[in-house]
Amino acid sequence: MMAGAPALAAVDWGTSRFRLWLLDSEGRVLALSKGSEGLEAGRRLGFEKVLRNHLGRLLAPEALPILICGMAGSHEGWLEAPYVSLPASLDQIAEAVVAVAGTDLDVRIVPGLAKRDPAAPDVMRGEETQLIGVAAGGAAGRRRVCLPGTHSKWVALEDRRVEDFTSYLTGELYALLSEHSILRHSLAGIDAEAPVDPGNPVFVQALEHTLSAPERFFAELFSIRAAGLLNKLASTDAAARLSGYLIGAEVATALRDEAAPTAVTLVASGGMAGLYGVALTAAGAAVETVDADGAARAGLMAIATRCIAGGLARQGA
Amino acid sequence: MMAGAPALAAVDWGTSRFRLWLLDSEGRVLALSKGSEGLEAGRRLGFEKVLRNHLGRLLAPEALPILICGMAGSHEGWLEAPYVSLPASLDQIAEAVVAVAGTDLDVRIVPGLAKRDPAAPDVMRGEETQLIGVAAGGAAGRRRVCLPGTHSKWVALEDRRVEDFTSYLTGELYALLSEHSILRHSLAGIDAEAPVDPGNPVFVQALEHTLSAPERFFAELFSIRAAGLLNKLASTDAAARLSGYLIGAEVATALRDEAAPTAVTLVASGGMAGLYGVALTAAGAAVETVDADGAARAGLMAIATRCIAGGLARQGA
Repeated sequence: MMAGAPALAAVDWGTSRFRLWLLDSEGRVLALSKGSEGLEAGRRLGFEKVLRNHLGRLLAPEALPILICGMAGSHEGWLEAPYVSLPASLDQIAEAVVAVAGTDLDVRIVPGLAKRDPAAPDVMRGEETQLIGVAAGGAAGRRRVCLPGTHSKWVALEDRRVEDFTSYLTGELYALLSEHSILRHSLAGIDAEAPVDPGNPVFVQALEHTLSAPERFFAELFSIRAAGLLNKLASTDAAARLSGYLIGAEVATALRDEAAPTAVTLVASGGMAGLYGVALTAAGAAVETVDADGAARAGLMAIATRCIAGGLARQGA
Repeated sequence: MMAGAPALAAVDWGTSRFRLWLLDSEGRVLALSKGSEGLEAGRRLGFEKVLRNHLGRLLAPEALPILICGMAGSHEGWLEAPYVSLPASLDQIAEAVVAVAGTDLDVRIVPGLAKRDPAAPDVMRGEETQLIGVAAGGAAGRRRVCLPGTHSKWVALEDRRVEDFTSYLTGELYALLSEHSILRHSLAGIDAEAPVDPGNPVFVQALEHTLSAPERFFAELFSIRAAGLLNKLASTDAAARLSGYLIGAEVATALRDEAAPTAVTLVASGGMAGLYGVALTAAGAAVETVDADGAARAGLMAIATRCIAGGLARQGA
């Protein structure tokens, strides 16, 4: 089937990156424009200017609905889209989309989700859209979803509603420890942005260590430095060990109340999909992997279909 | 009893600070000179120059033995004093003290300790001297020693020998998370160097959370950020919560294999002594607190008495 005319500009605008997909009314990708203009660039250059720059190739962007998810909707973003509280369904999120005023563009922003549990509050912005993409394509019933990243999210979906979630600082801890802590000496020359090799037996060994006892993380972290000093641990192995300890501790903690075997939907791409795939399998989970970008796109499309009055323009309409 | 003539310059030279005590032959403090010239300053300005600057008030420093512990003995320091392997006694450490050549000063450097366990290697520099100070003043038998700090050490002493130890990155994690992670927004205005108030109920509550289940640390860290966004958590309370989570996780992990009640010797000063005192008591340990500076001084004195040929000069000798 041929792709149709442009019907939606779907945007995932996060802290450190921008991605715009031009979609037809069936959600097929006509074009992709991406860049590193995250929140800071939006604030510095102007959100509309950054968006228009990416829309530049389109003849008449004013005629096209534009839907944005991610940190662009935060207090520090273009326009604050107040959090929707848990439990939250696709319809509730679509209803809470906010329109940006003061521009010729037809721009709307997807709200984030908030867990208002006083003992363990939590927030997300961007992942709710990926979850909608996952839920739209899946069956009803309960499922656990893992979205790894700087702040990994573990989510309980129930009949396509977000019932609960918890964030883990795994990616941020990896970056901080490898770049700024005493462990940086042992990881010299390693790019903190590049995921380690999931096939490295050092990764698997470290993973199994904290999977079986996540609190070991605290006692063994410093051993990466000591092994660098005493045993000339290679920096690639030091990175694999740090990554294994962290991901193992996250997965063990997230799954500690689950009866085995658990089915987990992993929303990830590239190297992250590999590392978490190995970790979840080692933890005894049955893993189904969904591409993270595809989930964001599908989620934006599903929200747009609901929140834009009269639906998206059909080809030839 | 009157203090005697200068017999030893005892120096604790760490990564970020320098302290010199002028002691008489009985270990009494005649003078103290301290500064922030850590390892970097020593490398940049010259170790001898920094030392001479602190010795400046003495009439004839060349006649005085000078004993240094800490990172000044590391590979990056003034002169590498190779690690002594576990188990290590006071005598072994004293025998492994190295003399600095190429200077008119009589300078010796205390070696660090290494745990050469391939599965969990570890190292220390500076704390071995405090441990000698603690052991010199205590009874024989087994005891657990906690030395909190940037890299907290938990040590098993047995009949005044260091049998085992494990390092925890607690202090460094606190500094990194409060200054560089997403949590910094919730801790705005907090001085990461200043310990939190151990009487803050938020500290105690967070502490008890991870004392009972250290792996909770991973799941609850991000809630500090979310509570800042959703519940306007005060930054002093955010700092107390972060500190409580970290110290609770460290203490729980360190004591997990101990039969309760455990006796723990806490080597700490000031605010750290207060926080760890509360944490250890909450964990059910019987705590004896030893001043950290006093332990370093006593350790340097005990090592000097053994390693300096003919002993330290006696008053009037």
